[in-house]
Amino acid sequence: MDGVKSTQEVLHTKDQSLRHLSQEEVKKLINQSNEAKKYSYSPYSKFRVGAALLTLDNRVFTGCNVENASSNLGVCAERNAIAKAVSEGCKDFRAIAIASDLSDKFISPCGGCRQVMREFGCDWDVYLTKSDCSYTKMTVAELLPVSFGSEHLS
Amino acid sequence: MDGVKSTQEVLHTKDQSLRHLSQEEVKKLINQSNEAKKYSYSPYSKFRVGAALLTLDNRVFTGCNVENASSNLGVCAERNAIAKAVSEGCKDFRAIAIASDLSDKFISPCGGCRQVMREFGCDWDVYLTKSDCSYTKMTVAELLPVSFGSEHLS
Amino acid sequence: MDGVKSTQEVLHTKDQSLRHLSQEEVKKLINQSNEAKKYSYSPYSKFRVGAALLTLDNRVFTGCNVENASSNLGVCAERNAIAKAVSEGCKDFRAIAIASDLSDKFISPCGGCRQVMREFGCDWDVYLTKSDCSYTKMTVAELLPVSFGSEHLS
Amino acid sequence: MDGVKSTQEVLHTKDQSLRHLSQEEVKKLINQSNEAKKYSYSPYSKFRVGAALLTLDNRVFTGCNVENASSNLGVCAERNAIAKAVSEGCKDFRAIAIASDLSDKFISPCGGCRQVMREFGCDWDVYLTKSDCSYTKMTVAELLPVSFGSEHLS
Ligand SMILES: [Zn+2]
Ligand SMILES: [Zn+2]
Ligand SMILES: [Zn+2]
Ligand SMILES: [Zn+2]
Repeated sequence: MDGVKSTQEVLHTKDQSLRHLSQEEVKKLINQSNEAKKYSYSPYSKFRVGAALLTLDNRVFTGCNVENASSNLGVCAERNAIAKAVSEGCKDFRAIAIASDLSDKFISPCGGCRQVMREFGCDWDVYLTKSDCSYTKMTVAELLPVSFGSEHLS
Repeated sequence: MDGVKSTQEVLHTKDQSLRHLSQEEVKKLINQSNEAKKYSYSPYSKFRVGAALLTLDNRVFTGCNVENASSNLGVCAERNAIAKAVSEGCKDFRAIAIASDLSDKFISPCGGCRQVMREFGCDWDVYLTKSDCSYTKMTVAELLPVSFGSEHLS
Repeated sequence: MDGVKSTQEVLHTKDQSLRHLSQEEVKKLINQSNEAKKYSYSPYSKFRVGAALLTLDNRVFTGCNVENASSNLGVCAERNAIAKAVSEGCKDFRAIAIASDLSDKFISPCGGCRQVMREFGCDWDVYLTKSDCSYTKMTVAELLPVSFGSEHLS
Repeated sequence: MDGVKSTQEVLHTKDQSLRHLSQEEVKKLINQSNEAKKYSYSPYSKFRVGAALLTLDNRVFTGCNVENASSNLGVCAERNAIAKAVSEGCKDFRAIAIASDLSDKFISPCGGCRQVMREFGCDWDVYLTKSDCSYTKMTVAELLPVSFGSEHLS
C-alpha cells in the first residue's frame, strides 16, 4: 500500500489544499478586513472592527461591528460577515481575517464569534491581525477546543 | 401664515414622501423577503424567516435567520439584513418586509430586532406578511413605543 | 344575568387584583431596583441599571446589568432578574421595576428585555423610574404590541 | 534562596489552593448543577442544562437555561449562574459545574459562555459532566485560548 492513498485521504488532502491560502490571498483578505472596518458602526465603544470571509468558492463577504444603545443587541464584525454569507447561500468557508485599530495586539474573536464560526466547521483558518497587517493564524478548532455543537443536541 | 410651510415642515413632508412606498414597491419588497427566506439556516427550529430592507437610496439588502447549536448565538433575518446594510455603508432606511412560512399569522419582529431597527430611526415602515404575501404595515415607533435609545446614554 | 359574573370573569378579576400592587408595594419594589443597581457590573458603559421582579407568590428577584468586553455578550438588569427567578422555579410575575441613574428620563426596557418579559405573559406591569423614584407604569403588552411569541412557532 | 518563596509566589500558591476543590466539593457542586437543571425552561429545544457556580467565599449560585420564542434572546445556564452571582455582589469564582441529560458526552460550554466566564478571570475551573456525574476538568484559559478581553479595549 506504500504510496497509495485511500479516496478519503485524497479528498482530505485536496480539501486541505483547497482551503490553503497563498501569501497573496492572505494579504488581500487582510486588506479587505481593514476596508470593512471603515463601515463600523461603533458610536458607543469607538472600537472599530472589520472582517473579511473567504468562501470555498472564493467569494468574499465583509462585515463590521454594528453596535446598539442596548449593548447586548449589537453584532460583531465576524458574525456579521458569516450571517451575510449564509444569507447569500454560502456556508463553506476557507478563512476569515479580522482587523481592528490595535497596533500592539492581534485582534482575537470573542467566544460568541468562535461558536458561530464553528457552526460551519472546525477546520478552517482565522487570521488575527494588527493594524500594520501583520498576523497570526489559528484554526477554529484551536480557538474553540472541546467545543459544543449540533452533535450534542441529537 | 396660511398656506405657508416652514422649511422644517417642507423637509419633513419631503422626507415622508421619500419614505413612502408605491404598491409596486411594496409587492416587490415582500417578494424579495420571501426569496431571502430560502437561504434560512434553521436546522434546529425549522422556522424559516426572510427579510428585505429598502434603503433611502433604494438599495435592497436581504437577510435570513442563521441559527446556532447554542441557540442564543443565532441571528434573526431582520438583524441580518440591517447589519448587512450597515456593513456596506447604508444606515438610512425606508422600509423592511419580513416573511415566514406562516399562512395564518402575520410574522412579527421580535423585540430584539425592533430595538436594532430603532437604532437607525423610529419613523420608517415594517411590513409584516403572511405566506400569501398579504401584509400589515406598522412603523418602528408603533412596534417599540416609549423606546430606549442612545439619548438615554448621553 | 345582571350582576352575575361568569367564572372566567371572576377568575380574571381575581387575577387582576392579585397582580395589582399597592402604593406601598410599588415604592418598595422601586427601592429594591435601586438597591440592585449598586451591583451593576458596567465598566464599559458606566451606565448602571437595576431591576426588581415581583412574582405572583410575592418573592422578589433583583438583577443588574452585567457587561462584557465583547459587548453583545452582556445581559440587561431586567433579563438578569427574570432568568434568576426562572432558575429558582418562578415563572409567574406581577411586576418589575427598573432603575437607572437618569434624573430626567424614565428608564425604559430595551426590545430584547420586552421580548423576554413577554415570554412569561403580556398582562403584567413594568415600572419605568427616574432616579428620584418617580415612575410611569406600562404593561408588557403596551411595551411590545403585536408581539412575536411561541404561538407563531407551533 | 532555597526554600524561600517570594510574597507573590506565596500569594499565588495560596490563591491556587484556595481555588482547588476537594473531591467532596466537586461531587457536591456537580450534584447542585444537576438540581439546577430541573428548573430549565427549554420548551423549544427540550435540551435541559444546569450550572452551579462556586465563589471564592464559598457561596453557590445555580442557573439553568432559559429559552425564548425568539431563540437568540435566551440565556445559557452558565451565564445565568454568573449574572446571578454578580447581581449579589460576587465576582470571584473558584469553579463552575455544568450538567445536561447527555449520558455519552461531556456537556461543554458554548463560546459565548466561555467569554462571559473569562470576563471574571482565566484561571478557574470548569467541570464538564455526563449525566452519571462523571466529569472532565478544564480551566477557562484552556477553553478560550488567546482570548479577547478588556485589555484589548483600553
Ligand atoms: Zn465576536
Ligand atoms: Zn428578531
Ligand atoms: Zn434590555
Ligand atoms: Zn452558553
